[in-house]
Amino acid sequence: MDSDESRFSMTKKHHTKTYLEAKRIGKVDKDFISFCDFITKQKEFFTSSCCAGRITLVGLDKDESKRESAFHRKWHRTVEYNEILEGFSSFDGYILWFKQEPLILHLGTNTMDNARLILEICEKAGFKRAGIKVAKDGKYIVEILGTHNINAPIKEKNSIEINEDYLKYLVKKGNEKFKTNQKMLKTLEKEFKKNLK
Amino acid sequence: MDSDESRFSMTKKHHTKTYLEAKRIGKVDKDFISFCDFITKQKEFFTSSCCAGRITLVGLDKDESKRESAFHRKWHRTVEYNEILEGFSSFDGYILWFKQEPLILHLGTNTMDNARLILEICEKAGFKRAGIKVAKDGKYIVEILGTHNINAPIKEKNSIEINEDYLKYLVKKGNEKFKTNQKMLKTLEKEFKKNLK
Repeated sequence: MDSDESRFSMTKKHHTKTYLEAKRIGKVDKDFISFCDFITKQKEFFTSSCCAGRITLVGLDKDESKRESAFHRKWHRTVEYNEILEGFSSFDGYILWFKQEPLILHLGTNTMDNARLILEICEKAGFKRAGIKVAKDGKYIVEILGTHNINAPIKEKNSIEINEDYLKYLVKKGNEKFKTNQKMLKTLEKEFKKNLK
Repeated sequence: MDSDESRFSMTKKHHTKTYLEAKRIGKVDKDFISFCDFITKQKEFFTSSCCAGRITLVGLDKDESKRESAFHRKWHRTVEYNEILEGFSSFDGYILWFKQEPLILHLGTNTMDNARLILEICEKAGFKRAGIKVAKDGKYIVEILGTHNINAPIKEKNSIEINEDYLKYLVKKGNEKFKTNQKMLKTLEKEFKKNLK
């Protein structure tokens, strides 16, 4: 086994273990499980991280730098208006953002040719935001991002608070886009299953 | 000259010509000119497209598919409230989005090693969203995206219209983020000038 093969085999082993453990303790988005299971079974591919999309309320300081505590509330599913209203009302920081974020997936592989293949499959599935982020011999990582999103500031100290009608509307729209994102994920999974053996 | 070199040299020649022509007729964002000029002068690099960031009003149909006509209004600069209000009031389609979009840049180069170097420079400059989109022998293209953005639906037929206070706030916030984005562009330019000779 040459050093590229050995680097790949070690990396795949590590990420497979991490993935299976995350799955066991319920830390993998259920919408992504069948896709990630499929990838994990491929000899030349692995997933290093994935999020099937989410709806969040993100609270930031005045300089809007992001910290871990920035997630005031977070859901990996559609939300109820009352849940958002609770998060909105209880926020007491500087600025609060309503975000519906698309899926993100990091797919690893062993060769540049396979990394190219991933990009081609993404294009066929209609995913414009895909690019090779890591390109070392024996370790290539492609980042795939969905495009459907909402990103709106909804409350700022001494400045603004959106009204109830608009908050309700954002919830409705966020849920719609969350579902569109889930459909896109299924399209992506189907395209990968068609193109990898 | 081998075929990789010849492909690169043809591609760079083509994009240099396109860039210089676009610059001549005023079609290159002025915030990007000094950066693109610098890249164009590098033997092993070129830019294939760039946008320094913009504020837009995007109008869509019920299925929200994007067409060229989707740009109801578009500015590559900060905006006045009255400009946005005019676009907002005159929109008669299904749904209108307020968007402040970050910079986007496509950087081309001749080798995988140079493509990796671009990724490293982006990381140093704080640009998380960079990835190799094209990887052919003699032609590598890296896409670089800024992260500061706003994406909010502001008017939907028979459903919602945001109020004046919130529209004013979005304009203020959009302009702030547009300026942050301009600063990030300068940081990126500086980092490239430091790392390429």
